[in-house]
Amino acid sequence: MNFADLKPSELRREIRAGCWRSPTAGLAPGYVQANLVVLPKRDAFDFLLFAQRNPQACPVIDVTDPGSPVPERVAPGADLRTDVPKYRIYRQGILEAEVTEITAYWREDLVAFLLGCSFTFESALMAAGIPVRHIEEGKNVPMFITNRQCVPAGIFRGPMVVSMRPIPVELVVRAVQVTSRFPGVHGAPVHLGNPQQIGITDLSKPHFGDAVSVRPDEIPVFWACGVTPQAVAMEAKPELMITHAPGHMFITDLKDEELSIF
Amino acid sequence: MNFADLKPSELRREIRAGCWRSPTAGLAPGYVQANLVVLPKRDAFDFLLFAQRNPQACPVIDVTDPGSPVPERVAPGADLRTDVPKYRIYRQGILEAEVTEITAYWREDLVAFLLGCSFTFESALMAAGIPVRHIEEGKNVPMFITNRQCVPAGIFRGPMVVSMRPIPVELVVRAVQVTSRFPGVHGAPVHLGNPQQIGITDLSKPHFGDAVSVRPDEIPVFWACGVTPQAVAMEAKPELMITHAPGHMFITDLKDEELSIF
Repeated sequence: MNFADLKPSELRREIRAGCWRSPTAGLAPGYVQANLVVLPKRDAFDFLLFAQRNPQACPVIDVTDPGSPVPERVAPGADLRTDVPKYRIYRQGILEAEVTEITAYWREDLVAFLLGCSFTFESALMAAGIPVRHIEEGKNVPMFITNRQCVPAGIFRGPMVVSMRPIPVELVVRAVQVTSRFPGVHGAPVHLGNPQQIGITDLSKPHFGDAVSVRPDEIPVFWACGVTPQAVAMEAKPELMITHAPGHMFITDLKDEELSIF
Repeated sequence: MNFADLKPSELRREIRAGCWRSPTAGLAPGYVQANLVVLPKRDAFDFLLFAQRNPQACPVIDVTDPGSPVPERVAPGADLRTDVPKYRIYRQGILEAEVTEITAYWREDLVAFLLGCSFTFESALMAAGIPVRHIEEGKNVPMFITNRQCVPAGIFRGPMVVSMRPIPVELVVRAVQVTSRFPGVHGAPVHLGNPQQIGITDLSKPHFGDAVSVRPDEIPVFWACGVTPQAVAMEAKPELMITHAPGHMFITDLKDEELSIF
């Protein structure tokens, strides 16, 4: 079977059946993939508030009704308990298990958040002829903890994490324009140029992901990163938190272009 | 004193002192004015979820921490219990009182939502040379209940309410572009042209506000309206809900241009 040709609903069926347990990059091109964060309802208001106050780092694309594992607006036929290839279970902020379905962990008070991921805007960048270095080099995107604090909400607080892509100087304006069209998946850059201004001392030593080469005619451009809400939620040590495992995203029925605001 | 020359913080001081109890249209030009909805925390998650699912009708610009009357992000020196010229108190969806401050009603479990209002994008339309008919005619904007249902969340459900502005046909594209820049205050139109397609049978009989003239070379253009969340919240009959009185908005320190996404 060629998984790359399958539609989102078909891919989710294969994932549910246990036939795909790998990272999802490259699957269902043109469709939105999402980060997953599941929390008890007692923490869900603060987390939703945190997302509302930090929309670049936490672009919400769907939230389930408490107790429902169905993301009605972005994949009405899906089940978030089984349709992600790999999950992580955290209790009081400690990683307890990595599992391929979470039916046994599901409770009536759980709320699932789907947050936009940068795959969508990277497709748009490449379609606009803007190179994406970590893809060219077959690496993970380099990510850095900044000195910028997110706006706190309840128990949730912490620094913004950013991803960095080196962009040829003559394409930086276009990169800003293209990603501005997608506020639902991090949107415009939060910084460009001197990394030290946001507390990054060494571009060759990312806190997460891999270092990539930055050429003399390129400017490092920084976007808010979806690792931010997971890092913040982990730091808040909620009683229970379930997330996707890194790179093992939820594949929605939404097309990338549907997240474009114009 | 010429109130029209005062800054937002000065105006809020006058309002707090009881010196201004009228509608706020025209005050603090260039600054964002906001709709107010106050709810108990037990209903706040569902209302925030409703706003997240219906961002055109419910553009959230700030949410207070439970118990705090201070909108930290848009007017850190303000007090939402005293700084709105007129409030309405609803219990179980019934209007109980209209008051000029709500200190006696405030409780530790209350959460205040500030929602964007169309004043901001109307300024942008006029700056772009696009006429705004109800302002020209000295009327309230005409508002209509449509046949489009909002996406429900918990106890909150109901139809989308829209406002209508007739736009000369050669300026419609520009009107779409200008308002698309402001997703935080309703954003792009939700419909244009034939009113019957969204369940409106007679443009001369708005459900709220005043009828305005539509000329032969003009197309009626419809934007999601901030009356929607108030109507929906009233229908949900929460134990307690406090809103601003129509037209008596909260004046923030935020400049209109800060709500533009580019």
